[in-house]
Amino acid sequence: MALPPLQIAIVGLGNVGTGVAKILMEHPDRIRQRSGRMVEIRKAVVRDLQKPRDITLPPGVLTNDMESVINDPNIQVAVELMGGIHPAREVMLRLLEAGKDIVTANKALLCEHGDEIFECARRHGRTVCFEAAVAGGIPIIAAVGQSMAANQILGIQAILNGTTNYILTEMLLRGQSYEEALQGAQDLGYAEADPTLDVNGTDAAQKLGILAQLSFGCKVKATDFHVSGIDKLERTDIQYAKELGYTIKLLARVRLVNGQLELSVRPTLVRQDRPLAQIHGPFNAILLDGDVVGTVWYSGRGAGQLPTASAVTADIIDLAIGRAQLTFACLDLWRETPPFELVPPNDTTSRYFLRLTVEDRPNVMAEVTGVLGRHGISLATVIQPEAPEVDASSTAVPRVPLIIMTHRTSTGNLAAAERELDQLAVVHSPRMVLAVAD
Amino acid sequence: MALPPLQIAIVGLGNVGTGVAKILMEHPDRIRQRSGRMVEIRKAVVRDLQKPRDITLPPGVLTNDMESVINDPNIQVAVELMGGIHPAREVMLRLLEAGKDIVTANKALLCEHGDEIFECARRHGRTVCFEAAVAGGIPIIAAVGQSMAANQILGIQAILNGTTNYILTEMLLRGQSYEEALQGAQDLGYAEADPTLDVNGTDAAQKLGILAQLSFGCKVKATDFHVSGIDKLERTDIQYAKELGYTIKLLARVRLVNGQLELSVRPTLVRQDRPLAQIHGPFNAILLDGDVVGTVWYSGRGAGQLPTASAVTADIIDLAIGRAQLTFACLDLWRETPPFELVPPNDTTSRYFLRLTVEDRPNVMAEVTGVLGRHGISLATVIQPEAPEVDASSTAVPRVPLIIMTHRTSTGNLAAAERELDQLAVVHSPRMVLAVAD
Repeated sequence: MALPPLQIAIVGLGNVGTGVAKILMEHPDRIRQRSGRMVEIRKAVVRDLQKPRDITLPPGVLTNDMESVINDPNIQVAVELMGGIHPAREVMLRLLEAGKDIVTANKALLCEHGDEIFECARRHGRTVCFEAAVAGGIPIIAAVGQSMAANQILGIQAILNGTTNYILTEMLLRGQSYEEALQGAQDLGYAEADPTLDVNGTDAAQKLGILAQLSFGCKVKATDFHVSGIDKLERTDIQYAKELGYTIKLLARVRLVNGQLELSVRPTLVRQDRPLAQIHGPFNAILLDGDVVGTVWYSGRGAGQLPTASAVTADIIDLAIGRAQLTFACLDLWRETPPFELVPPNDTTSRYFLRLTVEDRPNVMAEVTGVLGRHGISLATVIQPEAPEVDASSTAVPRVPLIIMTHRTSTGNLAAAERELDQLAVVHSPRMVLAVAD
Repeated sequence: MALPPLQIAIVGLGNVGTGVAKILMEHPDRIRQRSGRMVEIRKAVVRDLQKPRDITLPPGVLTNDMESVINDPNIQVAVELMGGIHPAREVMLRLLEAGKDIVTANKALLCEHGDEIFECARRHGRTVCFEAAVAGGIPIIAAVGQSMAANQILGIQAILNGTTNYILTEMLLRGQSYEEALQGAQDLGYAEADPTLDVNGTDAAQKLGILAQLSFGCKVKATDFHVSGIDKLERTDIQYAKELGYTIKLLARVRLVNGQLELSVRPTLVRQDRPLAQIHGPFNAILLDGDVVGTVWYSGRGAGQLPTASAVTADIIDLAIGRAQLTFACLDLWRETPPFELVPPNDTTSRYFLRLTVEDRPNVMAEVTGVLGRHGISLATVIQPEAPEVDASSTAVPRVPLIIMTHRTSTGNLAAAERELDQLAVVHSPRMVLAVAD
């Protein structure tokens, strides 16, 4: 091979960065064969030089000086694995201006500032690769941007957050509470010390935003659509869903409805016999629906050191070959697609699962169903479990759950009905409202 | 866009060829956006100009003159959809020599003569794209050759033939006989009038050969490893497998065992709770196991007009962009991988399901299990169903099925035991031997 080595810098040597360095250092022959050239780590930028690390780099590689990367004309590719928006955004823009191609796993940054980053890359004739930003082990960016090129994508349904899928699996299969399952996920390293962005749906929403941008050519931020997490779910919701034949998943979804886009990330009841219901543990799964190919289905580990490092390394090899540059230029072509408008939030429709807490006294069912009926919401199933035995000495009216599955209705109708239910003296908190997948 | 239109010829205007022509003609803007240029069908070569067709091409496009493609320097890409080995091989070589890049769905040709075709392409600086040759709707060629580039692939388990999977599903879920299910598949267009290559495993074996070649760098023909089909299966096998907690699938499999490759295509018992057991109907599914990423899972329609046409069109777009040319050059790099040897057939190991037909008399079980024991084959499960009621007037000894699941053993041991079982007076045909997946 006549090509000189590709010299790269890894910016951020955490879990994934260490994984990438290990792959490159442990398999130099494999990487050389598949890239057609050597790939050399010239710098690895960290904040703390003294921190003990799970890898030994050659002398002179580890540095805390970002300028040593920016100012080194031999470094052609920077692998941004700092995460977060600041200072990652500023660093990435400077790297692009300095003529480096970028490989990144930073979904937050791309979802919020992807347009600025991509525009900067184009202005400087550079390429940004981001396969690792969405569903690490699943090559979904290549699938959407390349393999599905003959298709208009019609919809995506996905489990994009492995942490929450692990928690939901433990709640379902082991009957754990949300808190117990979260603790287990943290013990196993599936959840961070601060799990907020995973459990409140933000992480999945950022990934969905990137997929929607790629599939439909329009910029969608995680704040532009309905996002809710699993942190309010109770064991009892999982249990009632199971009785009804459903499994609760944190479902990220985008679909074209009459030329408009409907997006959401929320805990959703999925019928037990559907493939998405059978994805257990810290896995991701994606169902892509194309107008030519039909439905194509992907699953794999969505996060973790090695699956994400595998995607990052594939991007580095793609850059070494020169293929990533062509792919990035094509994304530019895709931008010509007329952007789709989002369906106004109140007009989005779904079937719903409601768990109300009501007083166990006559006429309650009539009052509740009357409210729903007045808002045009028709019922598919109602479960009113038998009340628990009551302490005869208590004067309080016992409270019981009331489970209702609705037929399809709009978010606006449902919200209006919810407001009216709140006015009823017989309805108390907690109230749980979950979507039901078709 | 400054690039001139890409002019292509479609060679073979059957089901898939018509699908490709329709996509290109019905969505010119989509194709232009994603290719960065127009894609024009300049010729469509058919055998019979008079045959009624489901598509109307512009005047002058339809021809039965292959030379009009070979001699037209404006045609840069030929889409070979003739199928079969002759004359497709000779046509493809002439097209490459005439300077055309090739897109093909021809698995038989690539599996048997891929090395010759690829070598000819390289000699003439041409590219061969073949995403459509394996599991049409699933972008598995891109996945193996590109997205998994950081990995040594360790194994592949796949359902690669939609026709047989449809038949097995009907036998399982509707209790149909093999003949009934095959007839149904033919009525629905899932099976050809002559279904031999599907049902005897050849089609799946050719696809596995291509995947093995791509994943492990060594040439494997469909005749180099154990291939058996579903045409001898009986309802009763499906039923006993189900009782034992398994579903029978035509499983194509390759794995690295101690640095050697073990390949097979055969009806295999898969545990009901495994994802492959849940692929029903005319679908394909592929489990790829990489040493870095772990297991990645793909599913979709494996054949049919539009899924295959979607893959062919993606390849045409890839050629228009120039990306396919780089990818093809990379496959060349992959060839450097030291080729793996195949495990000698008698040394391959598996668990097995045996259905024997034995006489219902004392000591039969001891005789049969004695034979297996002498060959070092230990038993996991035995089912000896109660004998049917016997016509008291008959003097024949009644025959009953005997179902045995073995622990792991070698093909050689099993074959030796089978030969000895054949010598037993109490064992009659039919005898069914199926592999059991781990």
